[in-house]
Amino acid sequence: MTTTNVKAYGTGAPDAPLGQMTIERREVLENDIEIEILFCGVCHSDLHTARNDWGFTTYPTVPGHEIIGKVTRVGSGVAKLKVGDFAGVGCLVDSCRTCNSCKQDLEQYCLNGWIGTYNSVDKHLGGITYGGYSEKVVVDENYVLKVPANLDLAAVAPLLCAGITTWSPLRHWKVGKGSKVAVVGLGGLGHMAIKLAKGLGAEVTLFSRSPGKEKDALDLGADAVIISTDDAHMASVAGKFDLIIDTVPYVHDVNPYITTLGISGTLVLVGYLGGLDPVLNTVPLIMGRKAVAASLIGGIAETQEMLDFCGEHNIVSEIEIIKMQDINEAYERMLKSDVRYRFVIDMASLKNE
Amino acid sequence: MTTTNVKAYGTGAPDAPLGQMTIERREVLENDIEIEILFCGVCHSDLHTARNDWGFTTYPTVPGHEIIGKVTRVGSGVAKLKVGDFAGVGCLVDSCRTCNSCKQDLEQYCLNGWIGTYNSVDKHLGGITYGGYSEKVVVDENYVLKVPANLDLAAVAPLLCAGITTWSPLRHWKVGKGSKVAVVGLGGLGHMAIKLAKGLGAEVTLFSRSPGKEKDALDLGADAVIISTDDAHMASVAGKFDLIIDTVPYVHDVNPYITTLGISGTLVLVGYLGGLDPVLNTVPLIMGRKAVAASLIGGIAETQEMLDFCGEHNIVSEIEIIKMQDINEAYERMLKSDVRYRFVIDMASLKNE
Repeated sequence: MTTTNVKAYGTGAPDAPLGQMTIERREVLENDIEIEILFCGVCHSDLHTARNDWGFTTYPTVPGHEIIGKVTRVGSGVAKLKVGDFAGVGCLVDSCRTCNSCKQDLEQYCLNGWIGTYNSVDKHLGGITYGGYSEKVVVDENYVLKVPANLDLAAVAPLLCAGITTWSPLRHWKVGKGSKVAVVGLGGLGHMAIKLAKGLGAEVTLFSRSPGKEKDALDLGADAVIISTDDAHMASVAGKFDLIIDTVPYVHDVNPYITTLGISGTLVLVGYLGGLDPVLNTVPLIMGRKAVAASLIGGIAETQEMLDFCGEHNIVSEIEIIKMQDINEAYERMLKSDVRYRFVIDMASLKNE
Repeated sequence: MTTTNVKAYGTGAPDAPLGQMTIERREVLENDIEIEILFCGVCHSDLHTARNDWGFTTYPTVPGHEIIGKVTRVGSGVAKLKVGDFAGVGCLVDSCRTCNSCKQDLEQYCLNGWIGTYNSVDKHLGGITYGGYSEKVVVDENYVLKVPANLDLAAVAPLLCAGITTWSPLRHWKVGKGSKVAVVGLGGLGHMAIKLAKGLGAEVTLFSRSPGKEKDALDLGADAVIISTDDAHMASVAGKFDLIIDTVPYVHDVNPYITTLGISGTLVLVGYLGGLDPVLNTVPLIMGRKAVAASLIGGIAETQEMLDFCGEHNIVSEIEIIKMQDINEAYERMLKSDVRYRFVIDMASLKNE
């Protein structure tokens, strides 16, 4: 297969900084769209993959799955977008398309394993897929999103992961006008959860472990902030929430939040992978038919629905634009939660390097 | 207030056997129904309360909350039942009637605390409420159930607790024709879960820790039995179930069952109160939008719905009838799981003592 060499940023080892490299992109097939990448958001998963924190990175790796760009070429069978249109690519670039999950537009739960935008098996070129820290990407049109014309393109990028990851549970658990939603954690996911829940008409509360985030949370649209380490403050919202979106990415005690769920309420984890330690106590669950669930990104149709909703409601991410060359420093700042609320790489910096 | 003395069986201390005692029942008020108790099922909660296993028993205590009897008197405002009708009383005899839960027919989650059939504050006579191990009970008509005329009365009794405890989650999680339901544990609750899920049209699987229960489970209506300690057997049902009803009353590892849930599936605990140890792993939850929930008995309207459904589908509990005088031995057998599947006391034995 004919391929094109493009500049990218990646790393060949867990302990090596990211630097410039050259990768191949496949020729544009019948249903493919080639996208010149303009902006790419920086997700915690990028860092975890670069450093092999989860133990399944194949090197060299090129992260990036919050991609916004401009269509530069389309295959003969493509109807969705044309050259010159803006396009988005999120966490997945393919799936089996035939399993029960895929048939229900739940590609993120593909029973045969979806193809991630990076670090997944590349069925066209062999090896693994390379992500958005690069000049161009070629993606099947079924996994490419249309981008609302009225939004700031750089600030749309994080919607492709942070946005859809919080949108999907909001929709699955039917949040709407009158719903009472709480958000645990105010980072890339948390700040989008506040904006999207508010956009859907919910009353939104942020749980924060320490004071000082009130103004930021209210500016983002939250109606209230509850200090989760203050027992009296927590008691004031006992039994209140229909849905809690817990974005905390490390092990933490979820039991205090369960008491703030109303009857039949659900706490949904979107950030943490691992064991619930301290142990989950079933007594508060049984006394109110409550549930603890977890949710992974979202399907393609649902991602498009979210982007369209954001276009209509003028919702984007709060971002800090960086150059591709600043990525290693950005990772260090992310580890210290020193970002409000998402880094987005201006990919012109790579093109001009 | 005028009261009537009735014979009962109860205990005055955690380590004392149950024996005959005399208790008072209140006069029949405007909305009250007096019931001569014919049968009373024996629930694990009875034993836990008699022995103060949960630490909140007030002595003397008279257990029993699976009550079937005949109406002997009604208050002037009672329209639901008349003298001579059969009636049922389950786990609760009152609730606040004004909170959001009560207004939604979810009295079992009454935000102001429902009144249990035994060991709850008795707001009429002071002291605590006394349960169904007695000749008669007086209950507000709003908490009394109508009993289908076509069913065996003794075998209906366990529906009032074991039945509704499994019916409520089956209904809440919308089990019907085509649903795939699994049941963990084959006791009083488990055998009712099989019958009711089957009655609703589901495909039903029993999880059992050891071989030997296949015939019993299939006789009860199960379509299959999976040995949960056999990894290959468990792998054969990976991703299969929409709902798992876990009736196990002691601490156990729920993680192996999570892998058998399908996308968006829920495991609901109805038997165990305490911490989930070993810890619940969120990875299988997030990879399929799965949930762990818990559920408590059911509301009054839902209990009536279940009784009517059982009448239409000819569903009752499998029981072993005992005399009131055999209760202490029955408790010992329950502790050894030596019952298929519920003891029911023939209350004539108390009357004639």
